[in-house]
Amino acid sequence: MTNVNSVDPRTGEILAVVGSETTDEQVDAICDRAAAAYRTIRERDRSWRSGLLRAMAEALEGRRDKVVETADAESALGAVRLNAELTRTCYQLRFFADVVDEGSFLEATIDHAGPTGMGPRPDLRRMLVATGPVVVFGASNFPLAFSVPGGDSASALAAGCPVVVKAHESHPATSQLCADILRDAAESVGAPDGTIGIVHGRAAGGRLVRHPAITAVAFTGSQRGGEALMELIDQRPSPIPFYGELGSVNPMVVTEAAAAERAADIGKGFADSFTLGVGQFCTKPGLAFVPAGRAGDAVVEATAAAIREKPAAVMLNAGIAAAFGRGVEEMTAGAGIVRVASGRSAQPGVAAQLLEVDEADLTDRMLEETFGPVAVVVRYHDPASLAPALNRLPSSLTATLQTGSGEPTLEPAAQRALEERAGRIVYNGFPTGVAVSWAQHHGGGWPATNSLHTSVGATAIRRFLRPLTWQDAPESALPVELRDATTGVPRRVDGVLVPASE
Amino acid sequence: MTNVNSVDPRTGEILAVVGSETTDEQVDAICDRAAAAYRTIRERDRSWRSGLLRAMAEALEGRRDKVVETADAESALGAVRLNAELTRTCYQLRFFADVVDEGSFLEATIDHAGPTGMGPRPDLRRMLVATGPVVVFGASNFPLAFSVPGGDSASALAAGCPVVVKAHESHPATSQLCADILRDAAESVGAPDGTIGIVHGRAAGGRLVRHPAITAVAFTGSQRGGEALMELIDQRPSPIPFYGELGSVNPMVVTEAAAAERAADIGKGFADSFTLGVGQFCTKPGLAFVPAGRAGDAVVEATAAAIREKPAAVMLNAGIAAAFGRGVEEMTAGAGIVRVASGRSAQPGVAAQLLEVDEADLTDRMLEETFGPVAVVVRYHDPASLAPALNRLPSSLTATLQTGSGEPTLEPAAQRALEERAGRIVYNGFPTGVAVSWAQHHGGGWPATNSLHTSVGATAIRRFLRPLTWQDAPESALPVELRDATTGVPRRVDGVLVPASE
Repeated sequence: MTNVNSVDPRTGEILAVVGSETTDEQVDAICDRAAAAYRTIRERDRSWRSGLLRAMAEALEGRRDKVVETADAESALGAVRLNAELTRTCYQLRFFADVVDEGSFLEATIDHAGPTGMGPRPDLRRMLVATGPVVVFGASNFPLAFSVPGGDSASALAAGCPVVVKAHESHPATSQLCADILRDAAESVGAPDGTIGIVHGRAAGGRLVRHPAITAVAFTGSQRGGEALMELIDQRPSPIPFYGELGSVNPMVVTEAAAAERAADIGKGFADSFTLGVGQFCTKPGLAFVPAGRAGDAVVEATAAAIREKPAAVMLNAGIAAAFGRGVEEMTAGAGIVRVASGRSAQPGVAAQLLEVDEADLTDRMLEETFGPVAVVVRYHDPASLAPALNRLPSSLTATLQTGSGEPTLEPAAQRALEERAGRIVYNGFPTGVAVSWAQHHGGGWPATNSLHTSVGATAIRRFLRPLTWQDAPESALPVELRDATTGVPRRVDGVLVPASE
Repeated sequence: MTNVNSVDPRTGEILAVVGSETTDEQVDAICDRAAAAYRTIRERDRSWRSGLLRAMAEALEGRRDKVVETADAESALGAVRLNAELTRTCYQLRFFADVVDEGSFLEATIDHAGPTGMGPRPDLRRMLVATGPVVVFGASNFPLAFSVPGGDSASALAAGCPVVVKAHESHPATSQLCADILRDAAESVGAPDGTIGIVHGRAAGGRLVRHPAITAVAFTGSQRGGEALMELIDQRPSPIPFYGELGSVNPMVVTEAAAAERAADIGKGFADSFTLGVGQFCTKPGLAFVPAGRAGDAVVEATAAAIREKPAAVMLNAGIAAAFGRGVEEMTAGAGIVRVASGRSAQPGVAAQLLEVDEADLTDRMLEETFGPVAVVVRYHDPASLAPALNRLPSSLTATLQTGSGEPTLEPAAQRALEERAGRIVYNGFPTGVAVSWAQHHGGGWPATNSLHTSVGATAIRRFLRPLTWQDAPESALPVELRDATTGVPRRVDGVLVPASE
């Protein structure tokens, strides 16, 4: 039995033994309980499900101090950030409770029987239903908001899917504590055993994604880790969806006019954004296109000045810190790249890094995400050279524009290049900070994500739902949301959208 | 250069040489034109797109006689069926034009900037946009409705995606004719060259799915064929969605009460359904659970009587006819299976087959789809034995219930087994005949489909759309549907669903 240890990234010391890695037999039992829980939850109504989510939010808030303390000890993210993350996590659980109560996500649709231009049509009623048990892989960089009680779990539970979390090795004590809190909350509202499960250990994660009861996998992490999981999923007799949120370089383009008008603000904002959370955000702007010349110089100088003031900071674990060092080395191995500024050095911790390269010297390595507080400024000589450079980029979660006043977009080819390879276009702001809301999209083409779905915001629920259509079903066999008399959810009836009424 | 031949399945004779297999260079040029067309179409508004779909419907109808004649010569499906299929195809194009005009599919969502429980939120506006060029593999069994002008093409074009069709080898002349008609129609409304493309030959199909410009693949065909394409897609540097509609056994359950009340109707309806279109429908009910005993005997006798009257019929091509023969042989190799009735024999053509087996002798081979006019009746002895048997089944596009009056569903475990493994539950009817409508779902778990989406009905468009969110964008940079003043499409504004108004 291999111990699961909680480790302090500031010292490398073992803080506690959380338990043992989950065995194959335990994984199978957890999945079987999740499958049984799915069938029980199917019989519950939506208001029960939203109540479950709210009970979980309340329970987490009730243990706020302990959760933040445990998470800080394992992640070095600090109490301010972790308190904000817990607030976000509880807000998110309650937001999904509202989404469940509102009911649009069901896509309830009724076509009454009748004649059509292709012949008579039977009575057809369609609604989205839960797929079944879902596996969530906790993320290293968000011990709360993208781990046990995070967005994947909240949206899966909102859909009616039990969740089995693979705890991230970087914060097993936080994961176990949160799982215990969620389980107690679930029990308090009469949820079946198996609504929330947790496993520890890499082998347990591999077994999870191959278990026949599992119907979807959500993963936030490295491209390599995601690809390894996809290979395991390909070995299943039945493929299941894999929702990976992997690497993203998040380009930013500063126009000449923006640089001339707002160099100091752009530089400072950029430095703050790419070092926020020690650069450990999936939306970190890692690559900035800044014009050559004096206006652009001022942006770079403002960024550099801000970077030089940044204190050294401890990354999430020793492996991540080592990978950051290697990544910076690989990038700086390119011809013509220079290190413009470094943040402060101190042990333990890494120093922020600002690199700069002429567009002619941009290498493919610089187009990849490097996790941690580093960004590359690419100096471009002509707005017309932007589109070819942007078209070399892989897809990203975000793309950011800094434009001048009265300059709404880039020139069309460059604008199109960004819109074709980003899930969110940020105007005159910075991409870090991802609001949980109805209109949010946190996705993008490969390798940002491998799907057409989001992992943040109301529509994240769609990942764990499948359509089911009832044809000529008796009223009593229909879910309540598809019965004629129901008015409490928005529906499409005979092609016409009908909002909910009391 | 390998010739592409149009072959008469009734005689095996070559009717015409349609052309040559598409070369690698031609495939690449077609994909490049599709990518250019995508960028042009992005600039057009929705009413232009709905106009394109309507022009295509009108053009197909204008060439109805020629299309039906060409399709019948290659498919042996007969003029009645092919006329109905063309009507369906044109209805479908116009239906998707209505879907485009209505605008709900955009999922337009606006969250204005403001405070939230997790801090201030920027202005966020989300909408679904076209993914880019789509590859559609034509189906053997629907030369019109699931091939060049079929549901996949209609929904992709509705989304704003250019389409490249891989013509099915079984009907290349029909495919080329339809592509020419659609291209002329597209040209007549000013569509860019590359809006519709067509390739012939298996190698061309393989090259298509690996081309970097392609953003999704829709395929209707065999599980083996689908798996081969998935392997090719896995070789891409960037994975893209594969929407496969593969094998489906479409179980039907007849309760004791239904058998007692409606044996003759159920038997006749079942026989008609599984032999419709020479049993070459993806929704063919291939496996019927009928109670042992006298009431069930009457159902089997009524089915058998109808089958004995069925004339021999020519299948789509010689390979499919040979596979049908092998499939019947494989199934009848099981112990305890009997051939209850055969349809009439005549050359050329195959005879319909009704097989029967006791539930104790049901083999895994009988749980798989066999394409063609054959079905297996499974006799069960106790309603309680249904759930274990149904839980052995793979997922299907449909599941059908024949229940007694006042008997709304099966007992819970059996009902759940069907609902967990079907995309559409048909009550007291038959699964063949798939209406194109808002509430239709034509999907299901593996191997019926590999996705959470449908290939028939309004929501089929979702397969070819991806979300894009604009953050703090100036009004002029937004699509018209996301500007504040717009009222012509249903939207969600600050969490509230707002129907369209004039």
